[in-house]
Amino acid sequence: MKVDLNSDLGESFGAYSIGNDDRVLEFVTSANVACGLHAGDPMVMRETVKMALDKGVAIGAHPGYPDLQGFGRRVMKLSPEEVKAYMIYQIGALKAFVEVAGGKLQHVKPHGALYNVAAKDEKIARAICEAVKAVDDELILVGLAGSFMISEGEKMGLPVANEVFADRGYDDEGYLIPRGTQGAMIEDKEQCINRVIKMVKEGKVTSVNGKEVDIKVDTICLHGDSDKAAIFAMELRKGLMAEGVELCPMGR
Amino acid sequence: MKVDLNSDLGESFGAYSIGNDDRVLEFVTSANVACGLHAGDPMVMRETVKMALDKGVAIGAHPGYPDLQGFGRRVMKLSPEEVKAYMIYQIGALKAFVEVAGGKLQHVKPHGALYNVAAKDEKIARAICEAVKAVDDELILVGLAGSFMISEGEKMGLPVANEVFADRGYDDEGYLIPRGTQGAMIEDKEQCINRVIKMVKEGKVTSVNGKEVDIKVDTICLHGDSDKAAIFAMELRKGLMAEGVELCPMGR
Amino acid sequence: MKVDLNSDLGESFGAYSIGNDDRVLEFVTSANVACGLHAGDPMVMRETVKMALDKGVAIGAHPGYPDLQGFGRRVMKLSPEEVKAYMIYQIGALKAFVEVAGGKLQHVKPHGALYNVAAKDEKIARAICEAVKAVDDELILVGLAGSFMISEGEKMGLPVANEVFADRGYDDEGYLIPRGTQGAMIEDKEQCINRVIKMVKEGKVTSVNGKEVDIKVDTICLHGDSDKAAIFAMELRKGLMAEGVELCPMGR
Amino acid sequence: MKVDLNSDLGESFGAYSIGNDDRVLEFVTSANVACGLHAGDPMVMRETVKMALDKGVAIGAHPGYPDLQGFGRRVMKLSPEEVKAYMIYQIGALKAFVEVAGGKLQHVKPHGALYNVAAKDEKIARAICEAVKAVDDELILVGLAGSFMISEGEKMGLPVANEVFADRGYDDEGYLIPRGTQGAMIEDKEQCINRVIKMVKEGKVTSVNGKEVDIKVDTICLHGDSDKAAIFAMELRKGLMAEGVELCPMGR
Repeated sequence: MKVDLNSDLGESFGAYSIGNDDRVLEFVTSANVACGLHAGDPMVMRETVKMALDKGVAIGAHPGYPDLQGFGRRVMKLSPEEVKAYMIYQIGALKAFVEVAGGKLQHVKPHGALYNVAAKDEKIARAICEAVKAVDDELILVGLAGSFMISEGEKMGLPVANEVFADRGYDDEGYLIPRGTQGAMIEDKEQCINRVIKMVKEGKVTSVNGKEVDIKVDTICLHGDSDKAAIFAMELRKGLMAEGVELCPMGR
Repeated sequence: MKVDLNSDLGESFGAYSIGNDDRVLEFVTSANVACGLHAGDPMVMRETVKMALDKGVAIGAHPGYPDLQGFGRRVMKLSPEEVKAYMIYQIGALKAFVEVAGGKLQHVKPHGALYNVAAKDEKIARAICEAVKAVDDELILVGLAGSFMISEGEKMGLPVANEVFADRGYDDEGYLIPRGTQGAMIEDKEQCINRVIKMVKEGKVTSVNGKEVDIKVDTICLHGDSDKAAIFAMELRKGLMAEGVELCPMGR
Repeated sequence: MKVDLNSDLGESFGAYSIGNDDRVLEFVTSANVACGLHAGDPMVMRETVKMALDKGVAIGAHPGYPDLQGFGRRVMKLSPEEVKAYMIYQIGALKAFVEVAGGKLQHVKPHGALYNVAAKDEKIARAICEAVKAVDDELILVGLAGSFMISEGEKMGLPVANEVFADRGYDDEGYLIPRGTQGAMIEDKEQCINRVIKMVKEGKVTSVNGKEVDIKVDTICLHGDSDKAAIFAMELRKGLMAEGVELCPMGR
Repeated sequence: MKVDLNSDLGESFGAYSIGNDDRVLEFVTSANVACGLHAGDPMVMRETVKMALDKGVAIGAHPGYPDLQGFGRRVMKLSPEEVKAYMIYQIGALKAFVEVAGGKLQHVKPHGALYNVAAKDEKIARAICEAVKAVDDELILVGLAGSFMISEGEKMGLPVANEVFADRGYDDEGYLIPRGTQGAMIEDKEQCINRVIKMVKEGKVTSVNGKEVDIKVDTICLHGDSDKAAIFAMELRKGLMAEGVELCPMGR
């Protein structure tokens, strides 16, 4: 039994520093690197890719909406063709940095609002999958476990990775409870770890309504922006390893 | 004897249309496609690449300064490392569109003020060449004939293409007379054509001071933004062919 | 009986030219000038303001979404507070150019997708009105006739201007038929003119379903980006004047 | 005897937080607020203005180059007319936020590379002064003490404020030693404070070459981005007050 741990990195921009990439690279197995539209810039991308390769962390593209001011968190009504073009652009840019540094791009995980829209909008999900496949059909598509991202990816033969969140509540269909809603966040850290272990080993998660929902886990999303988040990530690693779960990049 | 004819394309942006790409593709053998920082956007890049491939025109990346409002024409003081990162970013993004469309990126030609700075600034020239080589050492580097761009590219073993301008005056060192200066532009169209033929066949250009200056010509820069420019391009093609000069992409 | 004729101007950006501002200023009484976020830039704003003042055309701010690549036509999910801040920013910037040139800002008309969202979303409409009022409570708020923009503006005591479109179909509630839908555009130019005259003189428009709908007209939106549009604008002017309707800025 | 203490504020952007505005507002008498081109955004501007007014700190516009990725620190070759337009745009936008919040804009201080260029380039200095004067001829222009900014401002009758830096070395002409050069930074904090007191009380500074250079001080630039910087600011305040120097906004 094995699982990947991923986190969003390379989201700094110019003089603006965000996140704690150094630290996060100590506990993840895959890094999603921002591609310059919702966050990141060419200098940051280059530096982040080098750091990840140095630490042996696998690299994925983390493309988002072209909205730096909103950090890609504000929904934009883009056509599927627009989404496709933005995806190819961003994946291509990051792929170049990875290859220049002697690495190989492992996966693609859309960011923020685009990730959420793609989970529920079949056409946007398809556009994203088509873009990924067009660039390189060996790239792993990372999407919300059980969402349209996964089903569209599978339909066109892309390798996919189902992503789960350790500290988020799920509804009866396996979708995330929206932030700001009752049950969206799970505060108790031990509970979070136990939930993840159950997801990985049994393929089940308990919904906010107490229902046991099927869930497939290939990768777990972690944060490292605070000391608390980093400590939690370490605890989660320990918990998983204690249960005999191997932690390794999704591509392996 | 053969020569390439290149032009800048794909410089439209969102609702903003610029240039006359359809027409230009009728008379060039290589297209320099903007990469989204000084001009162009992902949708435009995708469309332009398709059009060029359909017409059998070879494609190059046309990276510029990150200054859309200035169209990459305003000098920005960037460090060589910044230039390198911006180059990799832009070349990578365009390369993805070319490969997704089933083509192969042929060359890289910096745009506007970056092109001019690189011609005279050895460190910036080297940064550009290093970026091109790092992405793909078979990419042809296009630079001002005889400039630092060419010498730096050659030093590191990159294939290079010396570029000349049909309607521009040259000084005794083979540099362009700056726009706005006496002798910068050559108005007489027949004279322009004869100058180009001489450059291609004899490897010489007459400077503003009447001196015969050595010049190597691999590719000629053309414009297509006006009817006049397009007609001139057609006349130039005819003139070159009448002299037995073969017109073909620089990569061939 | 009098009415204002308005058009969007100053939407060029850097090297990108759009619209035909010179010509449009010949037939409108009010100009909506883009403020640099969805279109326009400081140089263009300055120039456009000068041109409008020279021609005696009244000036309004035309703020939009911060999405240059989408020309403000793609809906963005912004909070009311974000909308308010973007409005104050854009109005303030344009106001400075108008005052520097010796004029006085007359009105504010949101652009594109923001205009459409504000017509139907009470909270966004209110945020816009609050921003306008906060900057200067004598500014006229221009919104879709009969929409939330107008009702929210009236509620807080702002002077408002109901806007109609000469060539667009209306539904039974007085809303525009969305572009791309049957009945959205009225092709027959004479019919367009007659519809406008009826709106101005009788306060009625015939909906796509043939229903007579009440409509208040303070200003009519015109385009000038094509020869056809400009000729239509001239015809409309002639038609209105023949009916004794005075054409003058909404502020008079 | 009195002097103003100023600091750059409101340089956060979207999800990116920079500086420590809350703390800085405790020790300055004037705040230079970024205007959205090199840093800041409409939401940040609005919030920063409110905070400054709440603390009784006077507000100035802090316009910069349109280069967010470079934080306005990279020189851009702009024409005087471009600089003028960018200035009016940014001052206008910030002025609106200040007035909406019930305040009055006190001053304008260009940012970063633009500040440095304007100190040495007469035409750029003049363009900046013309822009400030055009918007409001009671605005105080803040520039490097004794530079072209000050002389151009004075020529056209603008109120000016000579700015000095506590921790920077000066050359024999009263210009700052460029960062990265020997003598650019003065590390000893007590020495910094004594230098400032001397500047304020005697109008003299000792250059890197040991020469006594005349210097006029209306305002002192402080930083608050680190604990050390904040502690230094407090020490400086104490030192100045102990010498009987009154600390108050430059406009008073």
